[in-house]
Amino acid sequence: MALDFIATFAFALVGAHTAVNRGMDVGGILFVAGVSALSGGTFRNMALQIHPAWIDRPYLLFAVIAAFLATLISKRSGRVGKYALALDSLGLGFAVVAAAQIAVAHHLMIGATLVLAVLSGVLGGLIRDVLCQVPPVLLHRETNGSAALIGAITFIALCHTPLTYLENGAISGLLVVLIRLLSIKFRWNLPRISRRQA
Amino acid sequence: MALDFIATFAFALVGAHTAVNRGMDVGGILFVAGVSALSGGTFRNMALQIHPAWIDRPYLLFAVIAAFLATLISKRSGRVGKYALALDSLGLGFAVVAAAQIAVAHHLMIGATLVLAVLSGVLGGLIRDVLCQVPPVLLHRETNGSAALIGAITFIALCHTPLTYLENGAISGLLVVLIRLLSIKFRWNLPRISRRQA
Amino acid sequence: MALDFIATFAFALVGAHTAVNRGMDVGGILFVAGVSALSGGTFRNMALQIHPAWIDRPYLLFAVIAAFLATLISKRSGRVGKYALALDSLGLGFAVVAAAQIAVAHHLMIGATLVLAVLSGVLGGLIRDVLCQVPPVLLHRETNGSAALIGAITFIALCHTPLTYLENGAISGLLVVLIRLLSIKFRWNLPRISRRQA
Repeated sequence: MALDFIATFAFALVGAHTAVNRGMDVGGILFVAGVSALSGGTFRNMALQIHPAWIDRPYLLFAVIAAFLATLISKRSGRVGKYALALDSLGLGFAVVAAAQIAVAHHLMIGATLVLAVLSGVLGGLIRDVLCQVPPVLLHRETNGSAALIGAITFIALCHTPLTYLENGAISGLLVVLIRLLSIKFRWNLPRISRRQA
Repeated sequence: MALDFIATFAFALVGAHTAVNRGMDVGGILFVAGVSALSGGTFRNMALQIHPAWIDRPYLLFAVIAAFLATLISKRSGRVGKYALALDSLGLGFAVVAAAQIAVAHHLMIGATLVLAVLSGVLGGLIRDVLCQVPPVLLHRETNGSAALIGAITFIALCHTPLTYLENGAISGLLVVLIRLLSIKFRWNLPRISRRQA
Repeated sequence: MALDFIATFAFALVGAHTAVNRGMDVGGILFVAGVSALSGGTFRNMALQIHPAWIDRPYLLFAVIAAFLATLISKRSGRVGKYALALDSLGLGFAVVAAAQIAVAHHLMIGATLVLAVLSGVLGGLIRDVLCQVPPVLLHRETNGSAALIGAITFIALCHTPLTYLENGAISGLLVVLIRLLSIKFRWNLPRISRRQA
């Protein structure tokens, strides 16, 4: 499916970009791109005892290679560009909805569906940051997790309406994209807990 | 089971505490709490081709949320408190015994049972430290691993006695708690290898 | 199988060495040795819904313990010795070929076979570096990944010849060893992308 390819491409692009900024060699860049793009879905499937997606859908690997080549060719550096971030938000929306759909199809309970949907969306970026030895943005100043959680809750809620899976997925996925883009534009952040060290 | 809930709560509490001390936002705190509490059992089940525990027992997720809320409300900071450490030791004892029981029920050999029991007990804390970018205490100055190993060996040995699983588990689990508490009180440490750099 | 044992021993030896250099206690050294040696095969099997190798072949655990004891006894420190690196290359060759064989036996497509073979070969070293909090050599200046990839491609290509699995595996595996040793001797590196920060 085209969306599948675009989501993988987007995650791989941001991963490759982060690896370039950390001064990795081309092997490291390709590796981080692949891990960023495929970890979430791999964990999702392994938790449900299904083959990782890249085993049955090899075109996902082409999405990673395409993002890798685009990074090598690109002249731009520094911060990830606006277009890449928009694409990344689209990837998050897709990953969350795809995981929620699979979880519902496997008759998972609500809590487990939420966990699986959020993890599928954010795991790639988390492992990316661990491999690049930077503080995980997910845990410090990102709204990926919140957007994913709200999207997954919306998907579950809309399962009890007459909407088709496709309509439900489109609404929930676009909501994730919307929250993510608004949070970037207006620099929304989750609160921290400020405490004096006792 | 109540013990299950308490063990998850304890691991999540220490995880949330570590995340607070690293200045994470509330999303990061909840995430680290969940990963600290659930990674060990998730790996254990996935290695045995069983669903992760949080899929079938959603009340484990409530244990994580309870620990998260307790952390938000709490005024204390700095070092993890004595009660949390005692609770964490109880969690370790439970996790090790639960994994050893499942491994024995799956007819795993002794070596594999030991590996699975120790990993189930320590994996959550290890991933917690990796995500928080602190040197993993497990690998540098902790006795969690040794306590878990001794507990697992005890459990396997007692399987050849007329003790029931429950009695065996209680003895092995309390032994883990005892070793852990004594090691904290008397600052027991495993030796390092000191060498001149050649 | 003897090769299996040697490969695990080699990976564990390098892992234990890295842990010693990071000043870990003996528990940490044993743990890192085990994770370095067994992660690749564990992931490979879990992705294919097979038990991790250490569950069914407990002698692999003895290979880890042997490497751990050899490290404790050894007087040498500093850089990993030449013999250990040669052994490590042999381990890589074996791990890649073993994974490629299993992937082909499971009728995986070419792309998935390559991913699985490379990951099986390099995952242990990657997790080792994450746990030791050093920049992953795989991603910065190592040719493990390239050697593994070329070996896996060779194995797949030779599957279409009248060579037996054993002959094919020997050729592909020795090619991995050769590339790895030559790259160490002549300090081959993959290029980086040098860019001005935009």
